[in-house]
Amino acid sequence: MSDDCLFCKIVSGDVPAEVVAENEHTVAFRDISPQAASHVLVVPREHHPDVASLAAARPEVAAALLVDVAKVARAEGSSSFRLVFNTGPDAGQTVFHCHGHVLSGEPLGWPPR
Amino acid sequence: MSDDCLFCKIVSGDVPAEVVAENEHTVAFRDISPQAASHVLVVPREHHPDVASLAAARPEVAAALLVDVAKVARAEGSSSFRLVFNTGPDAGQTVFHCHGHVLSGEPLGWPPR
Repeated sequence: MSDDCLFCKIVSGDVPAEVVAENEHTVAFRDISPQAASHVLVVPREHHPDVASLAAARPEVAAALLVDVAKVARAEGSSSFRLVFNTGPDAGQTVFHCHGHVLSGEPLGWPPR
Repeated sequence: MSDDCLFCKIVSGDVPAEVVAENEHTVAFRDISPQAASHVLVVPREHHPDVASLAAARPEVAAALLVDVAKVARAEGSSSFRLVFNTGPDAGQTVFHCHGHVLSGEPLGWPPR
């Protein structure tokens, strides 16, 4: 856990969030600024700054997160979804705890930016 | 390999593509319709229809793909990147062989749609 990390505090319950699913590896909660009919963030319980560092350090957790993302989308009522990982400030990452954005519930346009 | 899959044919070399990196698990090549200064697709050599099915069947390959994505972005000259996986037609998936879109090389806007 990183003491100054917002998502670590959500995982620990110290900061409230609308949690929609959780298991031993991940916690899924609604984005506070949704960009689609359904917009959920899926994060590992462990603190890793981004998706590549998670995958390098804990490949099994990274794979579990990808599986959980699809479960979240199905629970939200959709088999189609867009999964977005932003890495670094130029890509729009603002919280440096790995998180996948799961967007679903309506047709999604292109490009993804 | 799926006989009618475009990305399987790129992996096998039967269809040409501008390959920027490859290793035992993945092949990375430029999107033919780039949506950012750099837009590379990273695909597993094996045929899996989407990211969740890849992660469920071959977790170590899914994790390797996530690590390779960051290597591709760095080779393209950027530590910041957006990684997008579309799953299903409503999310814009058009080729049903798992592929991550790696967008980098310029500041990326939000929302990712």
